[in-house]
Amino acid sequence: MFQLNKQDQIFWNDLSKLLVEFELPIYFVSDEKKYIFITAFTHKSYSNEHRNSEHNDYLEFIGDGVLQFIVTDWIAKRNPTWESGLATQLRSSIVDKNNLSDLAEEYELFRYLRHSKSAFINGINRKTISNLYEAFIGAVYVAFGIETAMRIAEQTLGKTFDSHYYSQHSHPKNVLQEFFQQSSNSNVEYKTEKLPNNIFHSSVIFQWVKYGEGRGYSKKEAETNAAIDALKKLKTIVK
Amino acid sequence: MFQLNKQDQIFWNDLSKLLVEFELPIYFVSDEKKYIFITAFTHKSYSNEHRNSEHNDYLEFIGDGVLQFIVTDWIAKRNPTWESGLATQLRSSIVDKNNLSDLAEEYELFRYLRHSKSAFINGINRKTISNLYEAFIGAVYVAFGIETAMRIAEQTLGKTFDSHYYSQHSHPKNVLQEFFQQSSNSNVEYKTEKLPNNIFHSSVIFQWVKYGEGRGYSKKEAETNAAIDALKKLKTIVK
Repeated sequence: MFQLNKQDQIFWNDLSKLLVEFELPIYFVSDEKKYIFITAFTHKSYSNEHRNSEHNDYLEFIGDGVLQFIVTDWIAKRNPTWESGLATQLRSSIVDKNNLSDLAEEYELFRYLRHSKSAFINGINRKTISNLYEAFIGAVYVAFGIETAMRIAEQTLGKTFDSHYYSQHSHPKNVLQEFFQQSSNSNVEYKTEKLPNNIFHSSVIFQWVKYGEGRGYSKKEAETNAAIDALKKLKTIVK
Repeated sequence: MFQLNKQDQIFWNDLSKLLVEFELPIYFVSDEKKYIFITAFTHKSYSNEHRNSEHNDYLEFIGDGVLQFIVTDWIAKRNPTWESGLATQLRSSIVDKNNLSDLAEEYELFRYLRHSKSAFINGINRKTISNLYEAFIGAVYVAFGIETAMRIAEQTLGKTFDSHYYSQHSHPKNVLQEFFQQSSNSNVEYKTEKLPNNIFHSSVIFQWVKYGEGRGYSKKEAETNAAIDALKKLKTIVK
């Protein structure tokens, strides 16, 4: 039967404080399962120095696959019919390095990451922190299954889902696209050109009809303004 | 209550022949659920012509997220500890346009795809067929949940998983990498150069020690031969 070594046992005693905060059922858990969480919180730099320790890369791979699914499920349940491009955008903005590392910091996962002394001497990058969040979700999945992983993701990532969902939903270009998609599957098109004075001008076209126009200091700004113009003319309210 | 229109009802009668082959529990199913499958088998070109029909893009997005998870789960169960780069490679080789379109053809999903008359006048591309497989898995998930989606994926994609898994596992470069990873987390390195006679020469290095060398007409071939050489010297058997 697999047993933790002394070093890992000490690390577990500390790590378990974090895990109980997430109400994970760890009290009568086997050493195998403990080791899964220990691995999730072990950075490559530590296992390079301690040859008998695994690091969290593989659990991060697993956690990524699990998160892709969980976020897909949230999107599908929130919005049973939707434009797939917007859905894909939303999913990648949530399972995203910056978003996940913000979360890992908020929940202080990083405080528990086991690493070599010199590993982060010049600071730590966001990728390492975001990987830690994914590895944590991977460990929850492997140890306790998809229901528990969904609960933990809901508790943590769930909040950011709402804000991303609504900010994307209320982007004028997306609101306009959704408005037209009620009646047709064609895409809204933007004809954008750079004027001699370095200002961009954009017209928004749907099925050969111009619905609005706008200007801006970038292509993006001009297109957003064109979409706002079209929405005003269509008397749709933009929040 | 949502009811299928006549057109969709006729299409369903045909489509249901395919679905019973997968032993999906469709006999007493609601019209809402029927419509999910109808949508999965409706191409954009059809819904452009029939304004009240949705197309399968969004279900393809959902199916993709579901498949990422299912394949991650297979990999994690088959191989509880693994090099994450190889695992990522394996996952993308399975949830891959060519692999999925082969499957969709094998199971004749394409025969049931509803499209405009002129849509595939110049042939059909593999992306359309692979999207259909993903949309089908998406529909199974939305209508019947993850367990059923897993069963269908197992029945269809499961076979290709085994062959990809073993072919990747037995690639000499991967076997060598795994061999060294038993003792360390460093990577095997290849120093490869082009000789004047257009032949490539490669040396395989691990922790400053050269373990083997090889030649070939491409960088890839030279490195594979170097890995085989190293494995022979290490007396590991390569199948």
